Amino acid sequence: MLFSEIFTKTRKEAPKGEVSKNARLLIRAGFIHKEMAGVYAYLPLGLRVLSKIENIVREEMNALGAQEVLLTALQNPELWKKSDRWEQDVWFKTQLKEGAEVGLGWTQEEQIVHALTQHVGSYKDLPFSAYQIQTKFRNEERAKSGILRGREFRMKDLYSFHTDEKDLDMFYKRVQEAYKKIFKRVGIGEQTVLTFASGGAFSKYSHEFQALSEAGEDTVYVSREKEIGINAEVYTDAVLSDLGLHKDSLTEHKAIEVGNIFKLGTRFSEALGLSFKDEKGKSQPTVMGCYGLGPSRVMGAIAEILGDDRGLVWPKSVAPFQVHLISLAGKSTDVANKAEALYKELIENGIETLYDDRVAGAGIKFSDAELMGIPTSIIISEALVKKEAVEIKDRKSGEVKEVKINKVAQYITDH
Amino acid sequence: MLFSEIFTKTRKEAPKGEVSKNARLLIRAGFIHKEMAGVYAYLPLGLRVLSKIENIVREEMNALGAQEVLLTALQNPELWKKSDRWEQDVWFKTQLKEGAEVGLGWTQEEQIVHALTQHVGSYKDLPFSAYQIQTKFRNEERAKSGILRGREFRMKDLYSFHTDEKDLDMFYKRVQEAYKKIFKRVGIGEQTVLTFASGGAFSKYSHEFQALSEAGEDTVYVSREKEIGINAEVYTDAVLSDLGLHKDSLTEHKAIEVGNIFKLGTRFSEALGLSFKDEKGKSQPTVMGCYGLGPSRVMGAIAEILGDDRGLVWPKSVAPFQVHLISLAGKSTDVANKAEALYKELIENGIETLYDDRVAGAGIKFSDAELMGIPTSIIISEALVKKEAVEIKDRKSGEVKEVKINKVAQYITDH
Repeated sequence: MLFSEIFTKTRKEAPKGEVSKNARLLIRAGFIHKEMAGVYAYLPLGLRVLSKIENIVREEMNALGAQEVLLTALQNPELWKKSDRWEQDVWFKTQLKEGAEVGLGWTQEEQIVHALTQHVGSYKDLPFSAYQIQTKFRNEERAKSGILRGREFRMKDLYSFHTDEKDLDMFYKRVQEAYKKIFKRVGIGEQTVLTFASGGAFSKYSHEFQALSEAGEDTVYVSREKEIGINAEVYTDAVLSDLGLHKDSLTEHKAIEVGNIFKLGTRFSEALGLSFKDEKGKSQPTVMGCYGLGPSRVMGAIAEILGDDRGLVWPKSVAPFQVHLISLAGKSTDVANKAEALYKELIENGIETLYDDRVAGAGIKFSDAELMGIPTSIIISEALVKKEAVEIKDRKSGEVKEVKINKVAQYITDH
Repeated sequence: MLFSEIFTKTRKEAPKGEVSKNARLLIRAGFIHKEMAGVYAYLPLGLRVLSKIENIVREEMNALGAQEVLLTALQNPELWKKSDRWEQDVWFKTQLKEGAEVGLGWTQEEQIVHALTQHVGSYKDLPFSAYQIQTKFRNEERAKSGILRGREFRMKDLYSFHTDEKDLDMFYKRVQEAYKKIFKRVGIGEQTVLTFASGGAFSKYSHEFQALSEAGEDTVYVSREKEIGINAEVYTDAVLSDLGLHKDSLTEHKAIEVGNIFKLGTRFSEALGLSFKDEKGKSQPTVMGCYGLGPSRVMGAIAEILGDDRGLVWPKSVAPFQVHLISLAGKSTDVANKAEALYKELIENGIETLYDDRVAGAGIKFSDAELMGIPTSIIISEALVKKEAVEIKDRKSGEVKEVKINKVAQYITDH
């Protein structure tokens, strides 16, 4: 894509009142627009990143055999009264024209369980799992963390349905592994720790995936050796002993909860009547698990964790483009032609390229490239063209390498 | 995909109170779930159709050079007061915790225009266009038309920005052609008519794309010869004369408005301050167009127009699967093995196949296939296996053809 054709602009200053690093960088780079506190629109570059994250999540959900659905935002209160969750203060509520109150979905156990009563009848229908990637709403009191905590945000919610706890346990383990794979693929695997958190009536613990970051709202205690963490909310001697951990081996961190998985048992299937006939013809409540992961929050976590003082730093897997081609042609038509030809060659080789074709100084082009955080920059100038070379710069390390212009496409494909 | 693995079930009866053909068929086939009047969730088969429609729309928007964004559902009233649209009764309104009222987006001119004031400054920034495919909300009084008229629905909204009317006119024509292409690609091109409708302060007419159907709420007068229609709301002698049409050559139809395109002029750019500096440095309001198309309504229109008394009939381009493989193996392991092998061969040839592997009678399998509407059924049975053949049945025409089992993949690829 041509830089001159992107309708967004970078800016030097973030809007006043925007305190979070992720939103400051993303707004400055033209990736998102702040609509109101905790409510952000995704502009073309930001949507490219978000969509790549969502597609990675989608691939891993499909690999689990989960089937994708799209539930609604508008929620029928009758369902939520059955599970005693209609009175929670997280709701945005609104009214139909005829006066009935309805809610905006912030999670969807009640809705999917109710819908499934039309489709599940026998143990033969189980197990299965369904997920969606959808916009959710939470009436947050504080919304000062950019896209880490939105009043409106993107969420992947997976629900699984089983005849018994053993089957749930097996699937739950598989989701744990899928989540690890997702966080690795989006580039924050090293920073993300499987964390024990409070369970519920049905299981001792739930599990969170906590991305270690000063921007996080949670406190976790991490055992690097065992690659697990404990959420401060359950950090007691009893839990330590249960998990075979010693206080001395743990380090305290702030962390962003990027995912959570939870064994629900029969809490919702009993409340909303999702039962099946077992092999003996006896009616049993379905055993459930739920598994959340926020693509927009993940995007914010990547910005927080990998971004530096010069701007965003995207891993290749979620970067809006792979290559940022910077032409310092000045008035040289030879350099401009070489840049244009290289741009075409990169595109033909299937390399997503942003080509900074603007008439602008090197300083502006370099600082925009640093701010936007595309993994690799290719710099082409008069001096380099004389050597039939370009400079290839790694955004993360800052390393610069000179590569012959006819070897560039191959170099990018190999690295 | 294996039929036995899909978690949804078909049903013989639609829910009581569901009067629309599209929703009755889609619910019976397990494609959608009715949450409340005008609010439908998309189950796996339904989401496959919806996503295919949305991807066709996306391809045609990208071909126009439009850039995809994702705006928010929550809307800031201050923007809508500036354009005098906050008091319209189509809104769902809700409240932030601190008490401020916000709306749920039903269209998004105000929001995108306001966001762009950060990005547009000069005539050099124009023209460009941006679109999104997103869930929208309208507080409809009547919501009895299934997914044709939702309180919550999917919408593609495209906005274009220009220095002058001439440039808008050129783009507007290109969008008209893109829309024709979309309706052709999704299989209702023949039934969809470019229709003249009321304009506004800026232009004499707007244009609607009206899909002729008894289920439609609009009335249009169609000239088959000229391939245009006139919406009843502007059906006057003056308009007829303006368009060079004679009453006698027109036929009256009910129709579903599947798309509409509109020249906005400077109505919103003036109200919300989206101006640019022209070549002389003078500030000018941006000239705009907006272009709506509802993917969920299109899905409903396809169900209404192409569906018959036995069920849904999907065009190949949007069908959840291309092939419905029906095994009538009974107790024959030979037939079951042949069906299984054919399923694998189809998949390996990139043919999206739903394989009815259930232990069920021919009657159930056939009526489910008719109801679900996959374009081509392949039937395999003991008698056919003896002839080393299968039957291939076209859902739309009902035509049946016998094809040698080793030629099936080739046959499907060619047809």
